[in-house]
Amino acid sequence: MRLTRLGPRGAEQPAVLDDDGRLLDASGVADDFDGAFFASGGIGRLRAALHEGRLPRLDPPAGTRTGAPVARPGKIVCIGLNYRDHAAETGAAIPERPVVFLKDPGTVVGPYDEVLVPRGSTRTDWEVELGVVIGSRARYLDSPEQAHALIAGYAVSHDVSEREFQLERSPQWDLGKSCETFNPLGPWLVTPDEVGDPQALGLRLSVNGRRRQEGSTSDMVFDVAHLIWYLSRHMVLEPGDLVNTGTPAGVALGLPDTPYLRAGDTVELGIDGLGVQRQTFVPA
Amino acid sequence: MRLTRLGPRGAEQPAVLDDDGRLLDASGVADDFDGAFFASGGIGRLRAALHEGRLPRLDPPAGTRTGAPVARPGKIVCIGLNYRDHAAETGAAIPERPVVFLKDPGTVVGPYDEVLVPRGSTRTDWEVELGVVIGSRARYLDSPEQAHALIAGYAVSHDVSEREFQLERSPQWDLGKSCETFNPLGPWLVTPDEVGDPQALGLRLSVNGRRRQEGSTSDMVFDVAHLIWYLSRHMVLEPGDLVNTGTPAGVALGLPDTPYLRAGDTVELGIDGLGVQRQTFVPA
Repeated sequence: MRLTRLGPRGAEQPAVLDDDGRLLDASGVADDFDGAFFASGGIGRLRAALHEGRLPRLDPPAGTRTGAPVARPGKIVCIGLNYRDHAAETGAAIPERPVVFLKDPGTVVGPYDEVLVPRGSTRTDWEVELGVVIGSRARYLDSPEQAHALIAGYAVSHDVSEREFQLERSPQWDLGKSCETFNPLGPWLVTPDEVGDPQALGLRLSVNGRRRQEGSTSDMVFDVAHLIWYLSRHMVLEPGDLVNTGTPAGVALGLPDTPYLRAGDTVELGIDGLGVQRQTFVPA
Repeated sequence: MRLTRLGPRGAEQPAVLDDDGRLLDASGVADDFDGAFFASGGIGRLRAALHEGRLPRLDPPAGTRTGAPVARPGKIVCIGLNYRDHAAETGAAIPERPVVFLKDPGTVVGPYDEVLVPRGSTRTDWEVELGVVIGSRARYLDSPEQAHALIAGYAVSHDVSEREFQLERSPQWDLGKSCETFNPLGPWLVTPDEVGDPQALGLRLSVNGRRRQEGSTSDMVFDVAHLIWYLSRHMVLEPGDLVNTGTPAGVALGLPDTPYLRAGDTVELGIDGLGVQRQTFVPA
């Protein structure tokens, strides 16, 4: 299944795509696609309603905004340096354990929303990432194999980063990851059955039409199941939480001319089977 | 005013203390003490109801649990190395700018709840901190002076930390700050009018009856107003968010015999005018 949310920010309506590519209204089954929905078996209820033809057709007016496919996460956990080529381009060693940091969950916006270049920023950067949305609580998992059953789905996640804030203003990265609008998500949350192998997905990102990142989730240092297992041994992952699993090479920080983003730039990014995002950057 | 929340975890009822030290039921004025309450002028409504004698007396049965005085924050922002003596004891320089990191907001528990020593932990540590709860959105403040009007109140906050997870398993600290139950908060949220000068409060913490931390918020490197202003220039602080403002010297990490916490240990911590917490540590 492909879940999405449509409408103004903060008032999105849940919707799902049927096999013929038509939008259906999910608001009879779900108040919202949020932690409570996932925790209460909402995905199963939605699937049943879809298969039984109980969801009415949705015809949003032209210009209707696409929101993030899940409501504000309880937290966003990010994994740094999780692609071998990206670790190399930033001058970092391949980590022995996942590098874990957090991002303000208030940064989530829709996949086509404008992204704000922070005031005073000269080093705003892009990062295409496979986003994993948690479906069931993950706490002290015994093995990575247990992780798959706890995943609600996958989405394109843009881990926008301000490198001066991240690397120079503080030894801790979160400051440069938590700026307003810095986590476009979507357009779809795609359930695992439809994604297939999460470690065989191509990722790509272009800036103003020029390809900057091109990678595959097969190059992750730590795969999705390992990450969820590892995280669950240190913190509790709750339904609706988002895990950003790292970015492949090709960010501005790693390019010879460090072509950081400026107001007016447009970034397009996508992952196989998960859809494409597109954002224009504007001044905060 | 002094706000608190009473009852089982996840089903707490909002309450307020009157001038005679009696508990009053605030549930007629507030669904909960959360972001929506603060954002909608809830503190003003509560104050009016209190002064007009409209709040019924509350007589909780003996043994009623005290919850955190605010509902799950949207985010927890922490400031590291913000007391001169604590920076010295950890071997770090006095920072030129606030050291900013995040903590899983799901870690908040009540002030007398048990705290879990993570599985595999040998370096669980304590940190008494002045917690600041945001009352109104803070975004690109022009000056620190603007910060005071945006603060809902202050509370004792225990920034429990696992030093191996924080310092050895990842170059980023969040992993060792985000373990389950690692942020006891309360017992009270005290409004600024009742706290007076937030930079003149004594803080103290004891382990098994032995005094380990004793400091004053006057020793902060960056004061509360500066922190809120600085953070607002990098991220958006929303009503209900919690800012942990750093800890004074005396943590286990900085003591000659590094007496980290073990299951069975009891920690008691308090701040002038904000009350006292007490937790027993148990295995996760």
